[in-house]
Amino acid sequence: MAEYDTVSLLTDYGLVDEFVGVVKCVLRDLAPQARVIDLTHGIDAFDVRAGSLALARVIQYVPRGIIIAVVDPGVGTSRRAVAIEVAGGEGILLGPDNGLLAPAVAMAGGAERAVELNKPEYQLEAPGATFAGRDVFAPVAAHLCNGVPLDEVGTLVDADSLLPGTVPLSRPEGDQIVTEVLWVDRYGNAQLNVSAEDIADLGERVQLRFGTTTRTGVRAASFGAVGAGQVGIVTDSYGLVAVALDRSSAAMELGLRAGDLVYLREAGDAEKGTTTPVQLRR
Amino acid sequence: MAEYDTVSLLTDYGLVDEFVGVVKCVLRDLAPQARVIDLTHGIDAFDVRAGSLALARVIQYVPRGIIIAVVDPGVGTSRRAVAIEVAGGEGILLGPDNGLLAPAVAMAGGAERAVELNKPEYQLEAPGATFAGRDVFAPVAAHLCNGVPLDEVGTLVDADSLLPGTVPLSRPEGDQIVTEVLWVDRYGNAQLNVSAEDIADLGERVQLRFGTTTRTGVRAASFGAVGAGQVGIVTDSYGLVAVALDRSSAAMELGLRAGDLVYLREAGDAEKGTTTPVQLRR
Amino acid sequence: MAEYDTVSLLTDYGLVDEFVGVVKCVLRDLAPQARVIDLTHGIDAFDVRAGSLALARVIQYVPRGIIIAVVDPGVGTSRRAVAIEVAGGEGILLGPDNGLLAPAVAMAGGAERAVELNKPEYQLEAPGATFAGRDVFAPVAAHLCNGVPLDEVGTLVDADSLLPGTVPLSRPEGDQIVTEVLWVDRYGNAQLNVSAEDIADLGERVQLRFGTTTRTGVRAASFGAVGAGQVGIVTDSYGLVAVALDRSSAAMELGLRAGDLVYLREAGDAEKGTTTPVQLRR
Repeated sequence: MAEYDTVSLLTDYGLVDEFVGVVKCVLRDLAPQARVIDLTHGIDAFDVRAGSLALARVIQYVPRGIIIAVVDPGVGTSRRAVAIEVAGGEGILLGPDNGLLAPAVAMAGGAERAVELNKPEYQLEAPGATFAGRDVFAPVAAHLCNGVPLDEVGTLVDADSLLPGTVPLSRPEGDQIVTEVLWVDRYGNAQLNVSAEDIADLGERVQLRFGTTTRTGVRAASFGAVGAGQVGIVTDSYGLVAVALDRSSAAMELGLRAGDLVYLREAGDAEKGTTTPVQLRR
Repeated sequence: MAEYDTVSLLTDYGLVDEFVGVVKCVLRDLAPQARVIDLTHGIDAFDVRAGSLALARVIQYVPRGIIIAVVDPGVGTSRRAVAIEVAGGEGILLGPDNGLLAPAVAMAGGAERAVELNKPEYQLEAPGATFAGRDVFAPVAAHLCNGVPLDEVGTLVDADSLLPGTVPLSRPEGDQIVTEVLWVDRYGNAQLNVSAEDIADLGERVQLRFGTTTRTGVRAASFGAVGAGQVGIVTDSYGLVAVALDRSSAAMELGLRAGDLVYLREAGDAEKGTTTPVQLRR
Repeated sequence: MAEYDTVSLLTDYGLVDEFVGVVKCVLRDLAPQARVIDLTHGIDAFDVRAGSLALARVIQYVPRGIIIAVVDPGVGTSRRAVAIEVAGGEGILLGPDNGLLAPAVAMAGGAERAVELNKPEYQLEAPGATFAGRDVFAPVAAHLCNGVPLDEVGTLVDADSLLPGTVPLSRPEGDQIVTEVLWVDRYGNAQLNVSAEDIADLGERVQLRFGTTTRTGVRAASFGAVGAGQVGIVTDSYGLVAVALDRSSAAMELGLRAGDLVYLREAGDAEKGTTTPVQLRR
């Protein structure tokens, strides 16, 4: 069986503590030849939904190898630690069986084999409570890189027994489409769970309604092309619709957060004539 | 003498400025074969105590090689830059002689040899004030990786002359144990300087007193097993006792910070009957 | 032609989202042998000036190879993506043609060849809007590492057509020197755009005037040598003058920010006798 030489990491560990560093120490110690890629460690603490969406966004770009993903509010409880093989062995995802991995696994074509990581001989003994990244996932990833077969590092389990993930779907409601903010990025762009095609019928100007706010969004070909004072409707680099402002944070100015519902519909004639400029808070 | 191929970094440089990047540039330039591990760069600026404790926590996991640790309020003053060999040459720690390295050196079995880094020919000339990570520690680490012997990069000094570190010790006081918060991690768990064994006699429910606050902590087998509204007493992944809440920050909710004293004693009968739920601030 | 084996990154992507991770995935996939150095990803969003200054500071330390620099408010508009060769092929800088690269290119001796990155066959197709780091710069860097010649990945353009950068210059004004804060670092030191030589005539005590504030700065040989309560004038590790306090943030205590003007002149006799201590806000 071919070995792996890349381990990609996605966690909610942050970069202030030494958690990520210790995981890399274990990998370097046990599989010195492996290269490590930090996908991100900036997932909000315990935010399984945000972690699963980030992993689903990146999975198509992750090179052949092992992925360790850890956002794990239930560490130390009965939730299982698992390894899931996808894409004919091109990738093996390690993480808690709490839905975190599920959307990415689906994006990669579905689980082909799955094991529960329950073999202490491929793990480290903890001085106290288990630190799953350090004691379970890193050593198992290293052993997989070193050629230990998947069904050796754990016990095969039925892929259907894995906890499903929750990817919020948009839905039509009368003349509206009910969408949800999946992600607010560093620049304040608010990604919705619709593609440009999904809302093609709504025309160039789209009414956005969320909370008690109603705004008119204008389609723009890129983030840089959003006009000053306009609320832009842009297809982002993942192919989904994002609400964006010109060089400032749409999320902050409009008060949008991940998980918020946004109702979209074609802007009426009155709205077509006017576009309320955004008052930037400075 | 065997060469080294890993350089592990722990600093208070943060990741906003390019300080860490420049250190890596120098390493890559002078020892291109070496691999770099970021233990953490998130130590609070100038917080030697926090840096020394983080280094002591990770040292047991750091792979064979060089460690550069820099938290250095006295850079440019008379404090020495040193290299300390431990564990039969398995590791060499580079850093300021300000106590930062001392607890980790002790954990690794003590200093076997130490040199003062005072040989300009193994360092870089600074355009201005010395940036020790870039101009002293990175080039010296690179030369050590390239096989230059330790006693070549500096002058041997008596290990007893190294500044000791300060690891706060817990102590009994009447029926109490006086502990100190060593560390508050990303999840808000407050690590104390006692092990579960140290407080075994205090029973399942432990009174915690700090500042003007008194709470009853309940032992839990893992962070995930702390009940809702309970203050959990958990043995953390380093084998020390941590004060934890269920999926929220114990430090924030209880007002605990690194360095705070926490008095532990067996909870009285009255307290055994009730556990005041924590009111979460949202 | 010699191949490159190092790709150094400087962006405003931050480390919370997975942007940097995806760039590294593409590099690993297309040029698995290349090593990646993170110079910094902490440039403020869209702050081209700050990014260009950081790049100019580090360029002298960056090892032979490719540099990707992205701070790009105009992504998706008509601004060009370019690659600029410097130093006899020792380095190739990739980035937007918006002035970001210009100061570093000048520091490295000037542009020797430049191409506009307009060949889709060396880029990735985006699912939506172009994510330049992922879709343009990372794949082009990988191809350059793999030996594809510079004039193959794009169309040669006149180096004189590249947008110049803006490096603010200090200037004399009567008995004063008008300077500007280039950078406030993690420790709160405020770097000015003058060297110690530039202000040698101003003597040991220098009057600093900015906004409505006037302070007397005292020269110190290093950051560690600034006296308690003093405003220090230190030559920093890049050879420029920095305003510094003893182990606290000069920028925060004095209210200095990047871009602020600071007027320097010799401190008068009255000022020479007294040094107003800084009142630290705690």
